[in-house]
Amino acid sequence: MTELDSVLGMAEKILEESLQRLFECVRIPSVSTDPAYRADCRRAAEFLRDELSSNGFDASVRETPGHPIVIAHSSFDLGHAALPHFLFYGHYDVQPPDPVEKWSSPPFEPQRRTDSDGVERLYGRGMADDKAQLLTFVEAMRVWIRTTGSLPIKATILLEGEEETGSASLAPFLLAHKAELACDAMFVCDSEMWDVATPAITTRLRGLAQDEITVTGPRIDLHSGLYGGPAENPIKILTQILAALHDVNGMVMIPNFYEGVPELPETLRTQWRSLDFSEENFLNRVGLKTPVGEKGRGILEQLWARPTAEINGIWGGYTGHGFKTVIPSQAHAKITFRLVGKQQPANVLAAFREFFRGRIPENCSVSFSGGDGGSRAIEIAESNPLIQRCATALKDEFGGDTVFMGSGGSIPVVGLFRDILNMESVLIGFGLDDDAAHSPNEKYNLSSFRQGIRSWIRIFHAIGK
Amino acid sequence: MTELDSVLGMAEKILEESLQRLFECVRIPSVSTDPAYRADCRRAAEFLRDELSSNGFDASVRETPGHPIVIAHSSFDLGHAALPHFLFYGHYDVQPPDPVEKWSSPPFEPQRRTDSDGVERLYGRGMADDKAQLLTFVEAMRVWIRTTGSLPIKATILLEGEEETGSASLAPFLLAHKAELACDAMFVCDSEMWDVATPAITTRLRGLAQDEITVTGPRIDLHSGLYGGPAENPIKILTQILAALHDVNGMVMIPNFYEGVPELPETLRTQWRSLDFSEENFLNRVGLKTPVGEKGRGILEQLWARPTAEINGIWGGYTGHGFKTVIPSQAHAKITFRLVGKQQPANVLAAFREFFRGRIPENCSVSFSGGDGGSRAIEIAESNPLIQRCATALKDEFGGDTVFMGSGGSIPVVGLFRDILNMESVLIGFGLDDDAAHSPNEKYNLSSFRQGIRSWIRIFHAIGK
Repeated sequence: MTELDSVLGMAEKILEESLQRLFECVRIPSVSTDPAYRADCRRAAEFLRDELSSNGFDASVRETPGHPIVIAHSSFDLGHAALPHFLFYGHYDVQPPDPVEKWSSPPFEPQRRTDSDGVERLYGRGMADDKAQLLTFVEAMRVWIRTTGSLPIKATILLEGEEETGSASLAPFLLAHKAELACDAMFVCDSEMWDVATPAITTRLRGLAQDEITVTGPRIDLHSGLYGGPAENPIKILTQILAALHDVNGMVMIPNFYEGVPELPETLRTQWRSLDFSEENFLNRVGLKTPVGEKGRGILEQLWARPTAEINGIWGGYTGHGFKTVIPSQAHAKITFRLVGKQQPANVLAAFREFFRGRIPENCSVSFSGGDGGSRAIEIAESNPLIQRCATALKDEFGGDTVFMGSGGSIPVVGLFRDILNMESVLIGFGLDDDAAHSPNEKYNLSSFRQGIRSWIRIFHAIGK
Repeated sequence: MTELDSVLGMAEKILEESLQRLFECVRIPSVSTDPAYRADCRRAAEFLRDELSSNGFDASVRETPGHPIVIAHSSFDLGHAALPHFLFYGHYDVQPPDPVEKWSSPPFEPQRRTDSDGVERLYGRGMADDKAQLLTFVEAMRVWIRTTGSLPIKATILLEGEEETGSASLAPFLLAHKAELACDAMFVCDSEMWDVATPAITTRLRGLAQDEITVTGPRIDLHSGLYGGPAENPIKILTQILAALHDVNGMVMIPNFYEGVPELPETLRTQWRSLDFSEENFLNRVGLKTPVGEKGRGILEQLWARPTAEINGIWGGYTGHGFKTVIPSQAHAKITFRLVGKQQPANVLAAFREFFRGRIPENCSVSFSGGDGGSRAIEIAESNPLIQRCATALKDEFGGDTVFMGSGGSIPVVGLFRDILNMESVLIGFGLDDDAAHSPNEKYNLSSFRQGIRSWIRIFHAIGK
């Protein structure tokens, strides 16, 4: 029997115990957005600190202007001076449980139920997002330590309590503790599998650039009877310029927009095409029929590996009931760009503004605001040895190939870790797309919890010494 | 001495008396929009009824659901069984005087002042809009009657009290009194001269068609990270279709839009080009530089004789502070069309909707609302003999040629008279563009009042028997 087999055996042996700890954690209503639950947030942080201390970690609750952050350092690397060192991220705060009346069981009284489909699931607010997820790696460490007396890696754990409200305290904390948190790479456990049988590593997160546009035409609102014809209408100018953003093939027409956008590796395109994914169903369930966007690229490629220019809001003139015959002085729009590869938010914004300014007629002016705060895309090469080792470990656990997924949206904390700690993030999680995070009857499959723990056990073995 | 000379002489003789009656009328604060002045509106109606009765008219105050309407019929056509019969329109209601503190003299205490430029002006709320204007024809009739014992025309007078609030009672009243109000044509005295020395007849009013557009894409608002790329954005579709409304030369691209749009008679184009009108100043004072709209046509031609398609409002998605990465389910716009010649509102709307529907991709749907209530353009041929006689009479009074003006906006009551009474309107007024109707320090030049009375005396002579 190998060491790994022993550790995996121990995981099975103490699973009920692990579940009890999970339920105890879920019973704490650590709703970060509601001041009424402030003490509960602290209680959740202290619970996790105690869990990690009882594992032999050097764990502490650190104060922030908001909810505290739990930091724990492993101390099992005696005799292994050069163990690779990884940071593990999770969050103990949860969404409010409202509407409570839609829950089948009370949100903070966790339940294990075998549903009518024969699947065992764990119900409770924060179960999937992110308490069971973060406990998969915490429990995996406990199992390693209980079996072998130590860990094959050096681990630092960071558990924050403000993820659901924007992680306001995280960036200052990272800046203040750069040295303490320095690691070779980090793991974020807040993502999903492709499906219940198919593990996934999220290797791509699109970045973001944003801008608000104001086109000003006449000095004042004009009567469209008395001025209509000769007078420039800024709504017309705005619509004409926005309409020029895309060509008929869905390409963004801003010069140099695609600078730094890599072509998808053929292996990845092949993997994504082979996935059990219905483009039709994806669109049908939100009331759409056919994919738009760049012609010739599948939906997954578009969402995970292609940039966009999207108008998120537009307004100008009279928008109330009935009609007002006005030529407004101003018209406005909000636009965001999803970025991939090496696209730089500042460059994209600059190119967009030049594109826009170049189309403004002499009767109008344009101003831009709110363009700060963009983020570059996150992208780890799937060929990275760390990724490859994790992928193999996951395949060993689940049997099927590990999917390298993207995410169309950004995960702000990942950007913070990269930008402040200069660290790559590996996103591995065991959530499923029917987990109902943020909704009533949030759940985590028992298999996700069990195989999540087993997966981390295998990963530590694969990446450690 | 001709009869006309005698009558004009009498006008000069009783001018002070006419001014006293005007001032008495302006002293009545007949603010139609404010219920606090309800009794004053009735008092103004009764004052005018008494004025007309004292002239020998058969005058009465007629009840409506709103403010009363004054109707008066002349009874001087003994021996002239076939006198031409004209309807005269004015309104006795006025705008609120606010902001009162910006007035140099109390708004309902009329003043005659010689200003620093040496011009005598009459100040007070409702002076120009429309009390002095309507009294120009009432006083002209008084002068004729006092001089000759009768009138050279048969006259019916209609003075309403809801013009400033939308004339809600007028259409039902016209429908109920079609026979009583039947005339050969009507005069509306609520318009302006070209300038203080140049009389004008407004022969063209643009019509209106209006529509509200809703483009629906996805069934629900979508996250632009998780759907951006393949998902259709209804704001994008809306901007693209609206941007296609005009070509680079300012022409409206809706098929058949220009059906029924006549080319401007060369004589009129020549007259308008010869007017003292600075295109630059017209635009500069509202912060614009160069005229847009149809290339090769002057501003006056565009405003008075060309149709438009104008976006009056647009909205969709997130329009609050900051950013929200949403692909909205819907996007909206309000659009109006200014119409000329024989353009039919229903045809224009139908063509627009077909234009729009034909550009809607299969992922979207479009709905239209609020398209009722359009109005055709008002246009009287300048060669019409009645117009020609009036133009000559005005030229006789002022010395300069009468300008045939247009108005870019519509005057709803003129449409009502045409549509309900099937009657052409001749718009003659003596207002000036600095009269400050609706603003503090509203005024009417003394010369406008004096020459307005004299002009009507000449017009009655020219069109009567």
